[in-house]
Amino acid sequence: MILGMAPVDDLRAALGDAAVLTGADDLDRYERPARGAAGRAAFVVRPASTDEVRSVLRWAWEHNVRLVPQGANSGLVGASVPDSSGTVGVLSTERLTSGLVVDPAGRTAVVPAGVRLSALEDALAPHGLTFPIDLGADPTIGGMAATNTGGSRVLAYGDVRRRVLGVEVVLADADATVLDLLTTLRKDNSRMALHQLFVGSGGSLGIITKVAVDVVVRPTHQVTWWVVPASDAAVLDLLDHFERAADGGARLTAFELLSGPALAAGLSRLDAGANPFAGGAVPDTVLLVELSGGEGTDDAFVVALERAPSGSVADARAVPAARSWAVRHAVTEGLRARGEVVGFDVSAPRSTVLVLRDEARRMVTEQFPGVELCEFGHMGDGSLHLNVVLPGGGGGGAIDVAALRAAMYALVARHGGSFSAEHGIGPSNAAQWRAATPPAVQDLTERLVRLFDPRGLLGHPALPYRHEGTHP
Amino acid sequence: MILGMAPVDDLRAALGDAAVLTGADDLDRYERPARGAAGRAAFVVRPASTDEVRSVLRWAWEHNVRLVPQGANSGLVGASVPDSSGTVGVLSTERLTSGLVVDPAGRTAVVPAGVRLSALEDALAPHGLTFPIDLGADPTIGGMAATNTGGSRVLAYGDVRRRVLGVEVVLADADATVLDLLTTLRKDNSRMALHQLFVGSGGSLGIITKVAVDVVVRPTHQVTWWVVPASDAAVLDLLDHFERAADGGARLTAFELLSGPALAAGLSRLDAGANPFAGGAVPDTVLLVELSGGEGTDDAFVVALERAPSGSVADARAVPAARSWAVRHAVTEGLRARGEVVGFDVSAPRSTVLVLRDEARRMVTEQFPGVELCEFGHMGDGSLHLNVVLPGGGGGGAIDVAALRAAMYALVARHGGSFSAEHGIGPSNAAQWRAATPPAVQDLTERLVRLFDPRGLLGHPALPYRHEGTHP
Repeated sequence: MILGMAPVDDLRAALGDAAVLTGADDLDRYERPARGAAGRAAFVVRPASTDEVRSVLRWAWEHNVRLVPQGANSGLVGASVPDSSGTVGVLSTERLTSGLVVDPAGRTAVVPAGVRLSALEDALAPHGLTFPIDLGADPTIGGMAATNTGGSRVLAYGDVRRRVLGVEVVLADADATVLDLLTTLRKDNSRMALHQLFVGSGGSLGIITKVAVDVVVRPTHQVTWWVVPASDAAVLDLLDHFERAADGGARLTAFELLSGPALAAGLSRLDAGANPFAGGAVPDTVLLVELSGGEGTDDAFVVALERAPSGSVADARAVPAARSWAVRHAVTEGLRARGEVVGFDVSAPRSTVLVLRDEARRMVTEQFPGVELCEFGHMGDGSLHLNVVLPGGGGGGAIDVAALRAAMYALVARHGGSFSAEHGIGPSNAAQWRAATPPAVQDLTERLVRLFDPRGLLGHPALPYRHEGTHP
Repeated sequence: MILGMAPVDDLRAALGDAAVLTGADDLDRYERPARGAAGRAAFVVRPASTDEVRSVLRWAWEHNVRLVPQGANSGLVGASVPDSSGTVGVLSTERLTSGLVVDPAGRTAVVPAGVRLSALEDALAPHGLTFPIDLGADPTIGGMAATNTGGSRVLAYGDVRRRVLGVEVVLADADATVLDLLTTLRKDNSRMALHQLFVGSGGSLGIITKVAVDVVVRPTHQVTWWVVPASDAAVLDLLDHFERAADGGARLTAFELLSGPALAAGLSRLDAGANPFAGGAVPDTVLLVELSGGEGTDDAFVVALERAPSGSVADARAVPAARSWAVRHAVTEGLRARGEVVGFDVSAPRSTVLVLRDEARRMVTEQFPGVELCEFGHMGDGSLHLNVVLPGGGGGGAIDVAALRAAMYALVARHGGSFSAEHGIGPSNAAQWRAATPPAVQDLTERLVRLFDPRGLLGHPALPYRHEGTHP
């Protein structure tokens, strides 16, 4: 449908001028995703309360207007911006920020969907608590729940799903029903886990307005070393060793892998002193290992290193945690400076993910000459970003990107891996969902989407389980 | 419906004699729940593979036979036995035991639904791994997933939900569809979290045939002390302290509370030497505190106790972990020996659960004289069993149990608590589900049950969201 302006004026009259944006300049930042092509929004609506979200969804139902939910617009699969049709609106949750409640003794927080991760951390820090999801970006909590974000400390603290205790959701049905699944109870089996359906739904089932999470004690000391493994086999030995060694003292909270090109890309964004290796050498593979705990954490790390399996460590350098993470989080930007990046956000059982990595290296070298595989990521969870930098200077026309994607996804499937370990489903990988998801799971997903959103109002039009809606 | 014997003979012919039981002696143990009244089964069918589960569900669809799924029949709300009608069959998963796979490097396991917790632990122990759900019972993994069991170490390791990576499920639809949601990936956002719907579903949405879980390093040392808090306020101070103190060394893995009567009941099942307190005294409240870690765990506990908030500890005794847990797990049996028990499995934010406990004490004393509140449970999660022992010798006729339930549930609701923290929904608390669940959540649950199980074939007939089915 083409949306007339009259209905949008109704919305503005109901919610106020600050809630509805239609000028091209105002819309721009809601139309550009963190990665991928920009879309075009018919308008942006920014409700500031659960009641206002209800008003928006009732209005959308009445006028049959499709909405893409958006938090901080930091998602990496293009799911938070509209398509290019100009007929889809953006429902931004960025003004849902009132009413953050921290219960320090209960070790929980109730967080309005529009609150940023950094703001939540600011509220928790005075209590010595943290929401232990480490990311390079600063998303909203609603977006984090809708995406089920992971990051670098999942091996110790789990992904967002594991920390969500409850949600408040508004459904895109005739009544804009508020689903009150909001609880801070740490144990509750009094109902089915409907709240878990919304975690990782990408906003396709309803608009998350509040999220209740459990939070953890903030470690007083975080110690990182850069460890060069003697071989691929040594990587798994070291992972096992640090998980066990850490158990006796501080705790293993990150076990990241950076290939040489990825490390070089991260280092390129920082000053020259950021490289701790002799003569500025960049090893083929570096593990960023972090232990967290109390005062004894520095010593615990040294002891753990001393006791590492014989011959597993080729080199090891203590690097301040802040610097380690600055380099780690600069990798994506550093790669982008080297050329066009085709991202692959994959995972496999961690026992086999390095085999997958090796086969990907070979495949790229043999079939796509000039292309560079720059892998990095969360080895402790079997999750790697097998990002590919295309030959520079726009001469990449020689590379068939579709063929590269097909070859990589075939490898991932052969190892029982995931084509979207962390980033979720959006227009950039929607086709792969059709190819990789068992038909019975596809069918059930489509039926669930119809049950929750009968008119098909929510989500990017390119999502594979979107539908045209039922209009009696 | 009244089931003729001819269809059951068909089932026996298809699956073999061992798979179908109809004799009264054979049925008996499947009809008696761990707690509550026995039911009457039309038959018991025990498929030994996913394919056989499909055969059973196709047969049930064809003949419109209702089935109650059952694992080890150790559930505490009566959901795993049939009602008294004699028309409902039991689908026992106890023979689904072939194909347990442990991936030590991946730190995961794929577990057939009928495997017992103890058998899983036996398979993990040689690798120094554990599935860290501590329970007094020995359930099947399928039952644990369907119930989302918790237990004593949830504050460190989470409930079953947090450890489930994937499931294989057979649906009670016309095709007996196998839903392949089985993955050992530790990060996977390539689809919605349909698997999480089945965790805590009580078997109402489908038959779980396999469960993929992540497992953890088994601590080499577990150290328990019995700590007498100086006051209720000191309980929360100590919980906060041990969570923080443990972070620097070993880890807080249990923080259980036992009231005097509960502790006495547990001690009564063991030899006299089990009580470490001077002169065999039983304190009003005892905390069972466990730290887990490596060699330094004993010392870490002593240091943590020395640094406890001033005036918070009235007494503290080191007790071997095995003995501590023997006493803790004997409480339920000990209470039963004292009289008829009315169990309340409740939770609240842990910041307020002791207020709830105090009000429950007062309510019981004032309104139900002669009744004894014997509370115990998982203080670290705000989860307590506010169990009530009725006046002995069958003279309990003076107590209106329905009024007691109503009064207790009203208290729980007033504190934003759960009427079923751990045990799930069954005939014993089904009425409370109707009373306590928001209407929109009830409605959505009913629609989901109809979507997954259109003929209403699965689950105890008294479940509030059961239905008579759609028969076109």
